[in-house]
Amino acid sequence: MAVGTVLITGGTGYIGSFTSLALLEHGYEVIIVDSLYNSSEVALDRIERISGKRPIFHKVDLTDVEGLDKVFAAHPNIDSVIHFAALKAVGESAEIPLEYYRVNVGGTISLLSSMKKYDVSNIVFSSSATVYGDATRFENMIPIPEHCPIGPTNTYGRTKAIVENIIEDFISAQRQNLKKANKPFEQWNGANLRYFNPCGSHPSGIMGEDPQGVPYNLLPLLGKVATGDRPKLLVFGDDYPSRDGTAIRDYIHVIDLARGHLVALNYLREHKPGVKAWNLGSGRGSTVFEIINAFSKVVGRDLPYEVVPRRQGDVLDLTANPTLANKELQWKTELTMEKACEDLWRWVSNNPKGYRQEPPPELLAGVKGKTS
Amino acid sequence: MAVGTVLITGGTGYIGSFTSLALLEHGYEVIIVDSLYNSSEVALDRIERISGKRPIFHKVDLTDVEGLDKVFAAHPNIDSVIHFAALKAVGESAEIPLEYYRVNVGGTISLLSSMKKYDVSNIVFSSSATVYGDATRFENMIPIPEHCPIGPTNTYGRTKAIVENIIEDFISAQRQNLKKANKPFEQWNGANLRYFNPCGSHPSGIMGEDPQGVPYNLLPLLGKVATGDRPKLLVFGDDYPSRDGTAIRDYIHVIDLARGHLVALNYLREHKPGVKAWNLGSGRGSTVFEIINAFSKVVGRDLPYEVVPRRQGDVLDLTANPTLANKELQWKTELTMEKACEDLWRWVSNNPKGYRQEPPPELLAGVKGKTS
Repeated sequence: MAVGTVLITGGTGYIGSFTSLALLEHGYEVIIVDSLYNSSEVALDRIERISGKRPIFHKVDLTDVEGLDKVFAAHPNIDSVIHFAALKAVGESAEIPLEYYRVNVGGTISLLSSMKKYDVSNIVFSSSATVYGDATRFENMIPIPEHCPIGPTNTYGRTKAIVENIIEDFISAQRQNLKKANKPFEQWNGANLRYFNPCGSHPSGIMGEDPQGVPYNLLPLLGKVATGDRPKLLVFGDDYPSRDGTAIRDYIHVIDLARGHLVALNYLREHKPGVKAWNLGSGRGSTVFEIINAFSKVVGRDLPYEVVPRRQGDVLDLTANPTLANKELQWKTELTMEKACEDLWRWVSNNPKGYRQEPPPELLAGVKGKTS
Repeated sequence: MAVGTVLITGGTGYIGSFTSLALLEHGYEVIIVDSLYNSSEVALDRIERISGKRPIFHKVDLTDVEGLDKVFAAHPNIDSVIHFAALKAVGESAEIPLEYYRVNVGGTISLLSSMKKYDVSNIVFSSSATVYGDATRFENMIPIPEHCPIGPTNTYGRTKAIVENIIEDFISAQRQNLKKANKPFEQWNGANLRYFNPCGSHPSGIMGEDPQGVPYNLLPLLGKVATGDRPKLLVFGDDYPSRDGTAIRDYIHVIDLARGHLVALNYLREHKPGVKAWNLGSGRGSTVFEIINAFSKVVGRDLPYEVVPRRQGDVLDLTANPTLANKELQWKTELTMEKACEDLWRWVSNNPKGYRQEPPPELLAGVKGKTS
């Protein structure tokens, strides 16, 4: 008997697949919907290989209202949703903003409408620390607490902030309307999880981030430099007022992050708090140079980089204050940035083509049906 | 030869119909799309009666992507859009927020996608002073200037603020993308018009606001009290720190407001400024009691009211600082709140069933083909 049944949108993507794995490992039944626009069905095989359980999968785009309704209709056991499906490239969001609003905002409106229709009342949303924008514009807001004012500086971040608002308004209306009708209302709950910089891979080396095209985050880019796919890393600015001049980010291992979703969902189901926002970060900031050093150490040689001017919209420091999640969810990161570098290197060095090739047999053999 | 061809979404509604009239009177060709969800086709007859010109009309819901595309395809002359179509009841927006997000935000995303597809490059958007929320939370922000931080306190206001953002991001992307491709980009422009409290009717007495169901704004409600359709007016709070204890709003005659759309559109076409936000208000605040007195004077007798507690979410003062529109658009209100009361009374006393009955023949006779 499953603990519960969870629909995971975008469940074959990077964080979605690790969260699907964590939920399966903790007794949940998992149903994935994904358009496969930027991910691979092979993730399902790896989840099964590691957990011994295979998520149910439907290839559906979130903006396809009828397709989504069919999934809810086919699985009346679904009691909760974890919502990852979204476009996620900051740079691209400035070029094709309507697509970002259509998919990220429009897709969520469709999803919530289906949830309302099928009476599925818990949602955990994949938000982002990007919603804070530049927290250094305030005094005493680094590391960033949840009460830091929202102020995203790019379209991607705006779509995340808007979806947080929509979820708040939706859950609040569901509760108010049921309350007025003297019906139970406390089953309607939501969590907006603001991630800092997810990184790392499964320690087995058979599951990790598999970006289509050029990656746009520091560690995957460093991975490409280490495998020789890219000649060098570009460092955007070494004139920030930080300890070594480069920008500070809070790197969080994807396995810690996936566990964050699990505990947030459990919290909603147990405490029925309405809508909550939680930061998921380590509370420890690393500079770009520190990441280059840590990853170079794992790879065993210096990786080439070039300092170029700052990039517009980048901010000095995005480090989480994770106290609220520590306290309320009894969650904190357990894996270090250095461990994430090790795991990432095991993944990229053994799977240079990502999910488009089989990993070495000895790695596969090591994980059959084992939990992480 | 028309000055230009403008698609007006929601053009049979209250402000939409007066703006359609103003554009026709100033040489524009007008094409209206409206779902008629909360308005009447009779408005088209009245526009024609007054201006001597009839707008082209298509019954299309903005969320119907294909239907909207067909309208653009059928009228390749369209060069600009004025976008009114939206749900607009603050109270209702708390009860059915997803509908508000779907129609107001989703509808706009569809509209902008069609504009992009058909290369229609100017948009004037019907925003609202509601986007400011409670400006009294800041020092020196009453009367409210455009640079007052945005902070809506209800779902309706949030949909308006979100659409403003989407328009900014969309126009900015269009300009950037064309600029990078060395193509002309300055034709892409937008105006977010933040209205204060629109009121009044056409001075002829044959065209006015025709709300379906119970109206939710002060002056239409007073109209219903004056015609005996409602027993008394509820005044929400007389303990505000204002000159008589009631809340202060900036009432703007719908004819001034319609002209504001005309001049904003002309400004976009002439100055090609990118995206601008302008307050459309008089700069003069009136309290609820002042409005009751002004309208009672017009009606010729005291209108009954009852003071009840403040309503959640209401703010003390929403008065515009209209300096920017005065300066840049050479626009200011010309009609007083007292004039709006007179015109409103002429409308409601002669048309107790709104557009569901013919006005007295002498009123109709007085306006045939005349400009206001």
